[in-house]
Amino acid sequence: MFLTNIQNDFPVLSRKVNGHRIVYLDSAASSLKPRQVIDEIHDFYLNHYSNVYRAVHTLSSESTERVEKARNIIASFLNVNPEEIIFTSGTTMSLNTIVESMLRCGYLRKDDTVLVTAVEHHANFVPWVRLSKLHGFKVEFIMPSGRFGTLEEKDFLKYKNSSPKIVSVTGHSNVTGQVVNLKMVRNLFPKSIFIVDGAQLIPHDKIDVKDLDIDFLAFSAHKMLGPSGVGVLFGKRKFLEEMEPFMYGGEMIDKVGFEDVSFNELPYKFEAGTPNIAGIVGFGEAIKYLENLDFGKIKKHIYDLTNYALERLKQLNGIEIYGPTDQRHLGIISFNLEGIHPHDVAHLLDEHFGVAVRSGHHCAQPLMTVLKNESKLSLFPNGTCRASFYIYNTKEDIEIFVEGLKKIKEWFDVQ
Amino acid sequence: MFLTNIQNDFPVLSRKVNGHRIVYLDSAASSLKPRQVIDEIHDFYLNHYSNVYRAVHTLSSESTERVEKARNIIASFLNVNPEEIIFTSGTTMSLNTIVESMLRCGYLRKDDTVLVTAVEHHANFVPWVRLSKLHGFKVEFIMPSGRFGTLEEKDFLKYKNSSPKIVSVTGHSNVTGQVVNLKMVRNLFPKSIFIVDGAQLIPHDKIDVKDLDIDFLAFSAHKMLGPSGVGVLFGKRKFLEEMEPFMYGGEMIDKVGFEDVSFNELPYKFEAGTPNIAGIVGFGEAIKYLENLDFGKIKKHIYDLTNYALERLKQLNGIEIYGPTDQRHLGIISFNLEGIHPHDVAHLLDEHFGVAVRSGHHCAQPLMTVLKNESKLSLFPNGTCRASFYIYNTKEDIEIFVEGLKKIKEWFDVQ
Repeated sequence: MFLTNIQNDFPVLSRKVNGHRIVYLDSAASSLKPRQVIDEIHDFYLNHYSNVYRAVHTLSSESTERVEKARNIIASFLNVNPEEIIFTSGTTMSLNTIVESMLRCGYLRKDDTVLVTAVEHHANFVPWVRLSKLHGFKVEFIMPSGRFGTLEEKDFLKYKNSSPKIVSVTGHSNVTGQVVNLKMVRNLFPKSIFIVDGAQLIPHDKIDVKDLDIDFLAFSAHKMLGPSGVGVLFGKRKFLEEMEPFMYGGEMIDKVGFEDVSFNELPYKFEAGTPNIAGIVGFGEAIKYLENLDFGKIKKHIYDLTNYALERLKQLNGIEIYGPTDQRHLGIISFNLEGIHPHDVAHLLDEHFGVAVRSGHHCAQPLMTVLKNESKLSLFPNGTCRASFYIYNTKEDIEIFVEGLKKIKEWFDVQ
Repeated sequence: MFLTNIQNDFPVLSRKVNGHRIVYLDSAASSLKPRQVIDEIHDFYLNHYSNVYRAVHTLSSESTERVEKARNIIASFLNVNPEEIIFTSGTTMSLNTIVESMLRCGYLRKDDTVLVTAVEHHANFVPWVRLSKLHGFKVEFIMPSGRFGTLEEKDFLKYKNSSPKIVSVTGHSNVTGQVVNLKMVRNLFPKSIFIVDGAQLIPHDKIDVKDLDIDFLAFSAHKMLGPSGVGVLFGKRKFLEEMEPFMYGGEMIDKVGFEDVSFNELPYKFEAGTPNIAGIVGFGEAIKYLENLDFGKIKKHIYDLTNYALERLKQLNGIEIYGPTDQRHLGIISFNLEGIHPHDVAHLLDEHFGVAVRSGHHCAQPLMTVLKNESKLSLFPNGTCRASFYIYNTKEDIEIFVEGLKKIKEWFDVQ
């Protein structure tokens, strides 16, 4: 059972690309936006927009109210407190905030160990690796022993006795599509600070942050129907209260003197400067749209599409599909066709079939080295093609995509 | 001579507030947006939006092209190179990037001296003060000796021989409305790294960054007709090339390994994560709109409004107006009425006259202590009322504002 009749909510889907109706399979990079979100932003700019906080006039009060309403929607969506929801410019800023703030306040010191996996997106990898060079803490890497980059429980188990100060993992790989068992990870490391990169997880599943005992969670609006330039950092109050801010400026302070400063209460302490006001308003609307659809149905829809696509793709000769082959595989399929560079595949899909997929290392170069080691291709191109599905995709989209791949293979075989 | 017939471009201006047509005098906090910018963002989301870079499909190429077009518009507007234009979430992030990046790369060390003024917005004050506590560099404060927070040349001259490593000043005070003579400052400190907080300056004047020999410039889109959540950090290439990034993640890297990472070329090295794509597109449109109006006319219009308002306000009894009284005073008027709290003034202006002004410390608490010292009020309220003007304001707006103040004074005098 697929979600039906929602395609009309997405104006871009009525566009033609190179003479074809668009088949958008790049939602893991950024999702399309429904008219409800686009119009909400438009209406907000037309009729309400002003700067927030610090003012008593009507437009400003209205804008402040809308931003706080969005914060409440998101807090309730995650089952956390509104003051634990910090608006950022996106997942990348959320994750950088955690690392740098922990360094500044002394949570993370020389000789502490941080555990990350080799399948992380660069946003949850580069800050740790680079700042460990500058500050001397230690980063250890969980290597995926499962099929093509798949993380298994035993991979985490190896580090159970290493007492990492911090464990920072993706909840859902942006390359292999693997959904990581966060409950298992938390249980293995009950005393570590537990950070989850939720950039792909949160758009696909409604999670209970309290129940999973997540200490920090980062995700972006633009991958879940919201605008670009907005993200969330959830952090448990007990940590946020002790942590030093990442950015300093307006609104995040209490008193500012020539000698030192004191900070505002949560969440404002971590929200320096004018926020992305219209973006936050749009994000609230996006979550409302998704919750109205029901996340149970969304997840089922995306599972069904993924399984259907995997079945159809497996029938192609010379295709190598990465990641798990079981029900951990959700929404994202990375693959290569023997002898054809993924950029060529992506380019030809776009040009001849209107199909938008992404190609490259997907900001996960360490994982590319893992895939390369296991690849049976005559030449691993240090990248993959990636098709990713979201609520507006259909079985017909998958058909066009797979038939396109068949044609491309034919053209290359003929040459 | 005022700019005419542009009010219809600003949809919010047709709104009623508490039964009155809105008189928006809060542009120093955030400007209104013209229909051209609002519709550009709307159209972009309706027909083009996708993630940028790293992809070959049509929507992504279109989005990338639009972002780079905006970068070129802004570079040409400032007379700098496009690779020196870094998109941030706003002025605050731009300034935090400079400070932290300089610390990480060793440009700014223990015992170095940084010179800032006491009139700075917190965004150009708190990062220096707080990080000096954590890292041990020294911050010195230029105190304004002129009338009510006005910076004079002699105030800078005092520090001429102190050889500061960095001089970081506002180009235009968000409280007193003073336009700072940047040429004078640069000439006094030819060997220092010269940083300008342009949040108020850039919306009011077209400057030649090369000619002024500015090393770093920070400003925001939302104060100059653009969307919230977008800002610019200009930095000279020679510095940016050596500096360590502030945020790490996708797109900003070249190679990522388990041991270390290398960075992308400029400007991408400083743009980690998915940018505010639609916001950047809207910002490009905002600059086009302003340039079409002509910055010469814009500045003249705002000068005329400011002078007219100053003349009218001076006629009120018991008003204290801050900042310079000469042609350095542009676009922003801070004041207090004897015996009436600025929050009450702002509240009553909004409720009874539809006039939006801001009240409070305007994220400039150090300057409030300076104003307090000179104030002749029976009780200085540690804040001011602030009326700020932009291109869409008219003489009639000023009339409504001043007449409103008169009424409020009457109501309080009667009590």
